[in-house]
Amino acid sequence: MAGMKKIMECVPNFSEGRNQQNIEKIVEPFRGQKGIKLLDYQTDEDHNRLVVTLVGEPQALKSAVIAAMGCAVEVIDMNSHQGQHPRMGATDVVPFIPIKNVSMEEAIAFSKEVAQEAARQYSLPIFLYERSASRPERENLANIRKGQFEGMADKIKQPEWKPDFGPVELHRTAGVTAIGARMPLVAYNVNLDSNNLEIADKIANKVRHISGGLRYCKGIGIELKDRGLVQVSMNMTDFTKTALYRVFELIKVEARRYGVNVVGSEIVGLVPMEALMDTAAYYLGLEGFTSNQVLETRIWE
Amino acid sequence: MAGMKKIMECVPNFSEGRNQQNIEKIVEPFRGQKGIKLLDYQTDEDHNRLVVTLVGEPQALKSAVIAAMGCAVEVIDMNSHQGQHPRMGATDVVPFIPIKNVSMEEAIAFSKEVAQEAARQYSLPIFLYERSASRPERENLANIRKGQFEGMADKIKQPEWKPDFGPVELHRTAGVTAIGARMPLVAYNVNLDSNNLEIADKIANKVRHISGGLRYCKGIGIELKDRGLVQVSMNMTDFTKTALYRVFELIKVEARRYGVNVVGSEIVGLVPMEALMDTAAYYLGLEGFTSNQVLETRIWE
Repeated sequence: MAGMKKIMECVPNFSEGRNQQNIEKIVEPFRGQKGIKLLDYQTDEDHNRLVVTLVGEPQALKSAVIAAMGCAVEVIDMNSHQGQHPRMGATDVVPFIPIKNVSMEEAIAFSKEVAQEAARQYSLPIFLYERSASRPERENLANIRKGQFEGMADKIKQPEWKPDFGPVELHRTAGVTAIGARMPLVAYNVNLDSNNLEIADKIANKVRHISGGLRYCKGIGIELKDRGLVQVSMNMTDFTKTALYRVFELIKVEARRYGVNVVGSEIVGLVPMEALMDTAAYYLGLEGFTSNQVLETRIWE
Repeated sequence: MAGMKKIMECVPNFSEGRNQQNIEKIVEPFRGQKGIKLLDYQTDEDHNRLVVTLVGEPQALKSAVIAAMGCAVEVIDMNSHQGQHPRMGATDVVPFIPIKNVSMEEAIAFSKEVAQEAARQYSLPIFLYERSASRPERENLANIRKGQFEGMADKIKQPEWKPDFGPVELHRTAGVTAIGARMPLVAYNVNLDSNNLEIADKIANKVRHISGGLRYCKGIGIELKDRGLVQVSMNMTDFTKTALYRVFELIKVEARRYGVNVVGSEIVGLVPMEALMDTAAYYLGLEGFTSNQVLETRIWE
């Protein structure tokens, strides 16, 4: 890819995880398009949900995402949708994530463009969420989605839940969609040499934001029964501000209190290169290092 | 770049660092070619030498490098060449470095193809060196280049210095060239909170291969006068086998003996992403991590 090409990631979630024909119709607009790459899509029958991972240039992403939202409007009827995962629309949520040569401000502006256009084309009520939210109580998707599809018809009539774009009325079959910009999520877990879940929970409690810990860390304790270990399982919601090594070192510090040790960690799924470079730079005390020095960035830019 | 495209790096050195017109002629074949990218070229007037950094697909690299060697044959006369850096040919040395989807075996075979073809086209005697060397005493470039251009006419008449390709006779103006495959070099320096050069030298002595240290580490002590520090300045010749973190930790261990501390380190120039991922994975104790999880590799592959 050339010079300073802008690259974003997009992870749209659709409320269809069972009907293969419908799933293929929704994914079709992401295939073989110039300027976008379909990295992955996963369906879950219990959740009855489809999660797609895309990267690409903003304009190409915009066209493809809006087209797929149209397919979802066509093939999904939320009135007959059942699944374990909370949901409120045929296209449930569309996060845009700045990756290369895109600022968060640009990603926010872009998410609003997509929301406006999709609302217009499909007469769909749309909420802006996360960094694009128009008010603080809309930052958290769970707040917006509370009441789910079934409760949404009444909810959006309330002045404080007026949608940011589209009609102040539920789409009869497609419900409501949330669109917004956010930082990349890194799923990061730290393993402890203990089988005591309570210890993992207590440590999670100390390092996560909500209970007094690091600003961009969510976490819970998890038991890995087959390994006889417990784990602090985390979502790092902005690794550029709350670094992986910082939460790793902090968990080591907290673990001492319980006489347990950190035995390793794992990154689940994808991680931006920057997060690992930052970790390497910290531990080696690298001076003046920039991502321009990574051979691959020079090859690919 | 597509699927499993093969990518190599090439860092040809030419014996011209003063005449801009000649320099441009030699660099010209690397510009605007499909399948290769000219990352950098640097000239040094004292050394009277040009160092070019390229990446690209093997076949495109082959054509461009052979073309540039032809330009060097045309514009450089080694009989009138003067410079501080040891040299033996118009094209002095051409290392090929496997980067992506290329094994060392392939890189070695490829370097031999290039050497054979260049020897044929320009009636140039060529030595294979480093990993491509046909005998152990030819692995080290300094051994091959000993005697320099002025001594080469006699040297290559000796049976043990018969060139691997081309005539057993010096090219009248272009001398002799060395071509071979090697691993990427990482220039890595570790700083100590001492102004005693002797300490840096002693530590370098302990961590470098030649005097009993790590297999793929070369190193010397250096004084950073303006900062009042000394430095262990190293070339890591195969970071996949001698990891950066290992030499960093070993220098910390050795520094204790002298009561000095490591205060930081630096990477000079380019470094493959893998070297930093490996470092991050070591310090975080990452389990089961692969480069496929780095978002950028998924975007670019």
